[in-house]
Amino acid sequence: MPQYQAPLTDMQFLLHDWLKLDQHYDKLGLGDFDQELVNEILSQGAKFAEQVIAPLNREGDEQSCKLANGKVTTPDGFSEAYQEYIANGWNAMLGSADYDGQELPYSMAVPVHEMLNAANISWRLISMLTESAVLAVNKHGSQTLKETYLRQLISGEWTGTMCLTEPHAGTDLSLLSTKAEPQDDGSYAITGSKIFISGGDQDWTDNVLHLVLARLPDARPGVRGISLFLVPKVMVNADGSLGETNTLSVGSLEKKMGIKACPTCVMNFDQAKGFIVGEPHKGLACMFTMMNDARFQVGLQGLGISEAAFQGALAYARERLQSRAPQGVQNPDGKADPIMAQPDVRKMLLTQKALTEGCRALSLLYATQMDIEKSSDDENAKHSAAAVLAFLTPIAKGFMTDVGLEVSNLGVQVFGGHGFIREWGMEQLVRDSRITMLYEGTNGIQAADLVGRKLSRDNGDMLNATVAVFESLVGDIEDATSKEQAGQILKEWHELSLQLKQQSSIDLAGAAYDYMHYSAYSLIGVLWLSMADSANRVDNELVKAGKASTCAFYIKRLLPRKDGFQFNLLENANDLVDVADSLFDYQA
Amino acid sequence: MPQYQAPLTDMQFLLHDWLKLDQHYDKLGLGDFDQELVNEILSQGAKFAEQVIAPLNREGDEQSCKLANGKVTTPDGFSEAYQEYIANGWNAMLGSADYDGQELPYSMAVPVHEMLNAANISWRLISMLTESAVLAVNKHGSQTLKETYLRQLISGEWTGTMCLTEPHAGTDLSLLSTKAEPQDDGSYAITGSKIFISGGDQDWTDNVLHLVLARLPDARPGVRGISLFLVPKVMVNADGSLGETNTLSVGSLEKKMGIKACPTCVMNFDQAKGFIVGEPHKGLACMFTMMNDARFQVGLQGLGISEAAFQGALAYARERLQSRAPQGVQNPDGKADPIMAQPDVRKMLLTQKALTEGCRALSLLYATQMDIEKSSDDENAKHSAAAVLAFLTPIAKGFMTDVGLEVSNLGVQVFGGHGFIREWGMEQLVRDSRITMLYEGTNGIQAADLVGRKLSRDNGDMLNATVAVFESLVGDIEDATSKEQAGQILKEWHELSLQLKQQSSIDLAGAAYDYMHYSAYSLIGVLWLSMADSANRVDNELVKAGKASTCAFYIKRLLPRKDGFQFNLLENANDLVDVADSLFDYQA
Repeated sequence: MPQYQAPLTDMQFLLHDWLKLDQHYDKLGLGDFDQELVNEILSQGAKFAEQVIAPLNREGDEQSCKLANGKVTTPDGFSEAYQEYIANGWNAMLGSADYDGQELPYSMAVPVHEMLNAANISWRLISMLTESAVLAVNKHGSQTLKETYLRQLISGEWTGTMCLTEPHAGTDLSLLSTKAEPQDDGSYAITGSKIFISGGDQDWTDNVLHLVLARLPDARPGVRGISLFLVPKVMVNADGSLGETNTLSVGSLEKKMGIKACPTCVMNFDQAKGFIVGEPHKGLACMFTMMNDARFQVGLQGLGISEAAFQGALAYARERLQSRAPQGVQNPDGKADPIMAQPDVRKMLLTQKALTEGCRALSLLYATQMDIEKSSDDENAKHSAAAVLAFLTPIAKGFMTDVGLEVSNLGVQVFGGHGFIREWGMEQLVRDSRITMLYEGTNGIQAADLVGRKLSRDNGDMLNATVAVFESLVGDIEDATSKEQAGQILKEWHELSLQLKQQSSIDLAGAAYDYMHYSAYSLIGVLWLSMADSANRVDNELVKAGKASTCAFYIKRLLPRKDGFQFNLLENANDLVDVADSLFDYQA
Repeated sequence: MPQYQAPLTDMQFLLHDWLKLDQHYDKLGLGDFDQELVNEILSQGAKFAEQVIAPLNREGDEQSCKLANGKVTTPDGFSEAYQEYIANGWNAMLGSADYDGQELPYSMAVPVHEMLNAANISWRLISMLTESAVLAVNKHGSQTLKETYLRQLISGEWTGTMCLTEPHAGTDLSLLSTKAEPQDDGSYAITGSKIFISGGDQDWTDNVLHLVLARLPDARPGVRGISLFLVPKVMVNADGSLGETNTLSVGSLEKKMGIKACPTCVMNFDQAKGFIVGEPHKGLACMFTMMNDARFQVGLQGLGISEAAFQGALAYARERLQSRAPQGVQNPDGKADPIMAQPDVRKMLLTQKALTEGCRALSLLYATQMDIEKSSDDENAKHSAAAVLAFLTPIAKGFMTDVGLEVSNLGVQVFGGHGFIREWGMEQLVRDSRITMLYEGTNGIQAADLVGRKLSRDNGDMLNATVAVFESLVGDIEDATSKEQAGQILKEWHELSLQLKQQSSIDLAGAAYDYMHYSAYSLIGVLWLSMADSANRVDNELVKAGKASTCAFYIKRLLPRKDGFQFNLLENANDLVDVADSLFDYQA
């Protein structure tokens, strides 16, 4: 089992030296948050992740969740860890101060979230969705709704869920059929069945607040007839105490490939009492407040798993003695050299490292844009940041989770046969990571969102704002060669994006996945050149030399992947759509 | 759960129309085997795979194997299926006629083996290793050993295992420490512990024959001090009846990511009686007779899983209705179109199909070379075929199993969230496939073998013989454009291979994995152009048009991957080996 250690040095370098958080906070009027406070939060977060939840991860997978007599039980220690989490205020990091939240900048919370995911994504998932639910209620809920529920949701006294999917309606929510009937008291009776509800119930809290998409009686078909409702597990009395149990229940728990310690529930709503969030028929937009946050956070799951897999593989490669290295004996006192000496193993480790640190840089850059969008008093800056976030969200979700699968599989590969054995914990990372490419919109949907809403159907704001952010990074690069190279990557990507924008929707759909990866490899190439340039000016020799060598590796061995993804971008999709369905197999 | 259907049409096309099996058999003096017999074997094999073992696959994963009181129990139905398998002679397909084997050509057995793997790799693994054990005993065993054991090993009355790995000796067998002490009766007392022993015991047969690597007292250190022993679970009396139980036992079963229905055992040998196979200290060469066969067969596991994943995804994509296709409504009577209409889903399906069929072509071409190596009376032809097999084995193992992981992951992706749920069976394919990249030499070891023994340290025979086989395929292409294109791919690959051969062993080690993939994408590109050209001359319109469109897809969207792998082939490995170990993380 790999011992997780939060990558504090890298995080601190990225936040302070690369992203210059002090200046960033000053500009946003967040001067109360300084380097010392950031480091303190990171170090406390690291302690919690390393000492409290990481040790529960392996055994949680073995125990998984149980459902008996309608009650869900999570693995040993999970609830206790959650009580510690909320008691120490971690759940409230981002919540509004109006409801006792701490309103920390995202750039402080995001690295802690990465740590939680690296330590135990099954455990993390429920609090993650609660945070996303907070956003939706805060932005779209009525004052009464907020007064009644937000404080407990922010503190973590209660948790939140996201009830979208039905058996016949996953990617395509227009097909959903859960019904909401208006009641005399202004509430709604919700009836229907939802599947894949993460944390649909648990044994951590007294109440669970379900955010449920459903149709009003007068709803038109399609996505414009969907409304959003808050449906508590237990009703809340006027004085805030808990009242009657609502008419909803857990139908069953899914048996899954991974994240076994997180209960994935079938939820049955039987005339359950719910309260509308936002306007009737405009529920999808409200849900997307929650969804967009969750998408980025799922990207952070991919990142966390990548870091955990890299650490596991690196520790093993340093210890495992097999064969001699082609460059000569490295461990003359031993019968063999550490496998870390093998060039092929080094390539796997550096691939893990370069992808993981590249994704971390992307996630923290994203976090600073969230800070701007939330806290800037310059309306243009806010608008631009929102545009950047819109553009980068599908990339962060789709790419960082694809990376999670690749990097965790490399982790298994470094372990050889032992990687396949459960007790080592490496195969669990592969299984756990696999869901991240699927939920909150499959990565194919992320790619479609990117080329559709974000590139071709936008007026250009999102692309332009994103280019501007990366241009500014390029502008700050001091080394002339790196600056030139980064500028070239960005220019090529920008030009190709503009060309792609002109393609038909069919061709775009065919090119979507490749464009998502082409964009990620290009943009992370810029980030690497920018990071390495910054690192060249810090005192820490390990950071300086580590970033330089990993950047060189990325540019030489990973950046070229973009060319493979770029190859067919401007080709049409005829080879995809013109093939008759019958030609996919040979069954007459 | 995908319903497996053996791809008989494709197999028959490849064998009869593409590889022209009739002529091939005539040339080898195997004229007794004709098209009708081949088709009969394929169709009976399909029936067994589809109806007997495929239905056991999902439940076998849930039940997994148990060890109690020293006895291993496999899941329900597994033993019964095995009894049917051996009763119908399937185990004896390839065994020597001297010991009641059927000596079918490999080109008849290999497609059946693919089917078994597609249906249930956990079940298949034990008989697969038995077949490989047959080869080692047949080639290296004494006459007495053969008389005593081969008949039952070939019929499947007893099974065989491959006992190499020890906790501290996996990739590097030179470190193994299991001891063999000569006894007065000419036998050896074997003492030591072996791990990862697939089918180390089972509840299928009365006896299990372990092929064990161990050291004689006078052995020198390293791989030249290793000998091979046959160690039966139960001793065999002179009259062939079973006698005393040997002093060996199953220490434990590994808890694994996948192939849970196959018992992976820790085997303890405690002065167990064994018999030497081949010469003292030359055990590794004997084991490699077994290992090389097993490597190709593991490649077939990757292929089988790919086919199963493709079939599952295709069936689901045809049925699952979500959203409308960008090219216009496809299913006007339904609320949504099948997801198969989505260009991105089509791309995933065609990727699965093109990779799977390409690997199948490679496997059957390989099988015909095995036929030549075994049955030709032309010594040059035999020698060349052996050289081709030596060169292609690491590619077949390494690439076809990497493809297994990619294609099974695509299968999960097409299913969306449902792909993560166990009952659908798609995630099991990912978990089962994962071992194939690890056992019988990790894929990194395959790549090292390819650039080392097969390319740079060979006198050129292996590369030349391989080029000749592919040149002959190119020569047979009738369409001028395809011929030109295939010739160009082959020429480029050949030239780059010759250049790579000159690199230092360090640079080769750094380039190994990329070269394996570069080679596979290039060679399978030639196979696709050759197949599509053949298909153009068959009567079956589905085959003709299906191969044409899939070939076009491969050339457009998958062949370019070779450029990514080629990019750094002739670069040095300095960026890998010169990075100080301390720079892989930032822990001071």
